Formats: sequence, C-alpha cells, structure tokens
Amino acid sequence: MKKLYILKIGGNIIDDAARLKDFLVSFSRLQDPKILIHGGGKIASEISRQLGIEPVIVEGRRITDKKTLDVVTMVYGGLINKNIVALLQSFKCNALGLTGADMNILPAHKREVIDMDYGYVGDIEQEKIPVPTLKFLLANNITPVVAPLTHDRNGNLLNTNADSIANALAISLCKDFEVELLFCFEKKGVHRDAGDTIFEQINLSEYQLLKAEKVITDGMIPKLDNAFDALKKGVHSVRIIHAQAIDEVVKNKSPKGTRLYV
Amino acid sequence: MKKLYILKIGGNIIDDAARLKDFLVSFSRLQDPKILIHGGGKIASEISRQLGIEPVIVEGRRITDKKTLDVVTMVYGGLINKNIVALLQSFKCNALGLTGADMNILPAHKREVIDMDYGYVGDIEQEKIPVPTLKFLLANNITPVVAPLTHDRNGNLLNTNADSIANALAISLCKDFEVELLFCFEKKGVHRDAGDTIFEQINLSEYQLLKAEKVITDGMIPKLDNAFDALKKGVHSVRIIHAQAIDEVVKNKSPKGTRLYV
Repeated sequence: MKKLYILKIGGNIIDDAARLKDFLVSFSRLQDPKILIHGGGKIASEISRQLGIEPVIVEGRRITDKKTLDVVTMVYGGLINKNIVALLQSFKCNALGLTGADMNILPAHKREVIDMDYGYVGDIEQEKIPVPTLKFLLANNITPVVAPLTHDRNGNLLNTNADSIANALAISLCKDFEVELLFCFEKKGVHRDAGDTIFEQINLSEYQLLKAEKVITDGMIPKLDNAFDALKKGVHSVRIIHAQAIDEVVKNKSPKGTRLYV
Repeated sequence: MKKLYILKIGGNIIDDAARLKDFLVSFSRLQDPKILIHGGGKIASEISRQLGIEPVIVEGRRITDKKTLDVVTMVYGGLINKNIVALLQSFKCNALGLTGADMNILPAHKREVIDMDYGYVGDIEQEKIPVPTLKFLLANNITPVVAPLTHDRNGNLLNTNADSIANALAISLCKDFEVELLFCFEKKGVHRDAGDTIFEQINLSEYQLLKAEKVITDGMIPKLDNAFDALKKGVHSVRIIHAQAIDEVVKNKSPKGTRLYV
C-alpha cells in the first residue's frame, strides 16, 4: 500500500511564525501524499478579545456561541489556513485549504447537550466522510490543509477539535493507504514526568496503567485515547513528536518522539 | 462548446443574509458547470473598525496595509467564503471555497507603486492561471467559490478586486467553454439616469460615447472597461443584472438587466 502522511500541528507552532515556516518547509519536502491539519492557536482568543468577546474554555474545549463561531471561522478558516496555503505554495507544495464544508469532506452534527452545552461544536460522522473525494485530491498531487471546522450539512459550520479531525481522516483513509499519523507540537513527545524524559513508545496496556496511575493526565488523555482508537481501527502508525522532528521523517528516518502501538 | 456560468456577487447582496440565501438557492439550481466569485461587503470594514483599524478606501479600492490584509483574509477567505460554501452544500451544490493561493489558481503580483501605494493589492497574471486545474475541478462537478484574494507565489496573500477575478477566470476558460459572465448586484443593470430605467444592452462604441458624455460614471467604469475587455478576448456573453434575475437564468430565460456586446 502507498504511504500517506497525516500531520497535525498544534497551536504553539502556529503562534510562532518562524517555527511554523520551518515546519512548512520540511512538510513540503515529504514526497509521499500528505494531509496537514492545523489547530487554532492563541490568535483566535486574541482576536476574540479585541472584538469584545471573552473566550470561554472548559476542559481545553472552547465554548462556541454564534459570535465565537464567526471568530473561529475567520481565524481558523481564513487567517491561519490561507496563510499556511500561501506559504506551502511558495515551497512548491500544491496546497488546498479546506474546512469540513468544502466538498463536504467532514460531515458532522452539533454536539448534543448532556452535562455541558459546548455550542456550535461538531462531532464528526466518521462513516459519512467521502473517501473517494479525499483519494481524488491525493491522486492528483493536491495537499489538503484542513482547518478545525466541520459542518452540519444544513448550512452551519461547526468548531471541531483538530486532533479529532486528524484521527477521523486517518481512519477513513487507512484501507487505501499505509497511514502514518503524526501529532506535531512544541514538546518532544509524551513526557514521563515533569522533566525532560519522554516515553519512546507506549502500548495500549501500558497506557491504561499510566492513566490509572495519573502519570499521563489532562490534555494528553483525549489525544491518546483518540490515537489508540485510530490504531485499533487500522491506522498503520501513530507518533507524537516535536514539530522539528519532521525533518527526520523527511529523511526517511524514524523520528524521535513517542510511538504508540496496540 | 459546453456552457460555463461565472457569476460575481457584490457586497450589498453579501451584507443581507436573506438575499444572499435566496441567491444561493437559485445559484445551486444552475445545472451547467459554474463558478461563484464573491466580493467583500461592509463586514470587512465593520470588523476592521472593531479591531481598531480605520478602513481607507480610495476611488473604491481598499488601501491594504499588513493589518488590513489580515482582516480581509479573515473576512473574505474565512467568514464570507466558508459560510457561502456551507450554505451551498446544504443546497446539494458541491462547493469548494478557494482563494487564489489554493492550488495556485490566481497567481498575481503586488501592484507597483506609481501615483498611489495600494499596499497588499494583487494584479492577476492572466497568462499564468492554471487552466487545467480549473477544468479538472469543473469536470468533477465541483463548484469553485472564489474569495477576492490572490497570492504572489512568495508566500503572501494579496487583496484583489472580485470583478477583476471574475474577468480573469472568464477569459482563462473561454477557449474551453461558452462562458456566460454575470455580474449580480443590488441594481437592475446599468442605469440610464438617476431614475429606474436601465440600458437593456450597450455595445462598445455606445459605451465609449456614454463614458465621454458622463452618463456612465464612477464605479461602473472599471467594471464595464473590464467586461468589454473580456468580450474582446472571447467571453461569450457578459451581463450586469440584479441578483434576483438569476432565477430567470435558472429557467434558461434571458435575464432582465444590461447585456454588453462588442
């Protein structure tokens, strides 16, 4: 099977123009088909505040009222996405910026209110992702650059976690490609403790133990829960790496960072 | 030759959610291949002011410093473009939102400073438009929705007049399609005077006379100059119509409005 790289870059990289540019130079050098999913960064909160809308974040998730949805549509779908596309084009990578509404690539529904009303937040309908559309783009040497926005097919955009999008796309495409899913951020991998050591690899049973022992906590939990789910569903490889480690991937080396396996 | 509709909708339609929705319902019913180009509307100026950047418009053109470029990237490329795409998808039109950077569809260069520095404003490089890319999208039943932004291929987005984009795309595609170029706005056509009468048709020599006699003035001049240029370069038909007149186009009737011919 042909290899497909699916890379997610987190907010801290996006907030730093020089680091983002370095990352994109390396990303553009990956010769296999590839998809980039980007998060939001602090810019959305900054612009939100400038527009007089105080951001509300609960457990790492942005509460998205209508005004906030407009802000993230502007910032994620416009400012961040289109600047990444323009940079990638300058590095001769044929990038195409997308939200989930474009060509309906990420059908979703507004999250149901159970304990918490997250507002205009989308849960992806995995089985409805149009795999032929994605394959058609990749087969034509187009590199999708996906903003963390989906839509409900009734005309509404929805704010959606970029990690969830990366997983959903990886799962969709793992029957047609050997998918290498890489979560790139500002840390070296999954940290073992407050210090600088990271886990080189974690399997599912180790992960469950580490979670029970509270060695792995907070924001890393939904990330790893999703990542193990992707592995169980057939994604070839999942790694959590520093954005700079992408250079090793370009050289066909195994990047430093944390490799997950089941 | 196969027919291709290229429609441009102006700012006044975009500013009115109900009228925009009506227009998009009709647009989605056009059975032939189609491209939509949208202008900016007042939203960019409003958001610009809220962010403390006073818009500067000289002869109908926005002076685009770096901060203003960010605002138009957010508003045109994100808020307006992606909401149009989401609405079209809800009407079963397979829309794909694009700026000129996406798949490099609109290569441009920053306008040279002669009398006036417009800032980050792009002049399209007509001969470099990748016609095969556009044909590839249209052949696959994808409807491009184009925001008024181009790029310089060095990583910079550029603010670009939506009329100019509509013309450039129409000229690029007129060797492969019978292009019907429709400028849709809030008026019934090119007005004969301050009253309600419009010109049903204007040919090039009449236009030159009307311009000399100052019957046609201001913002209509660059619009018509460009439109006649498109006709001379092989675009099949150019009309300036009310957004509602699109309903007649859907029914294969000749829409009310002003038809231009050479």
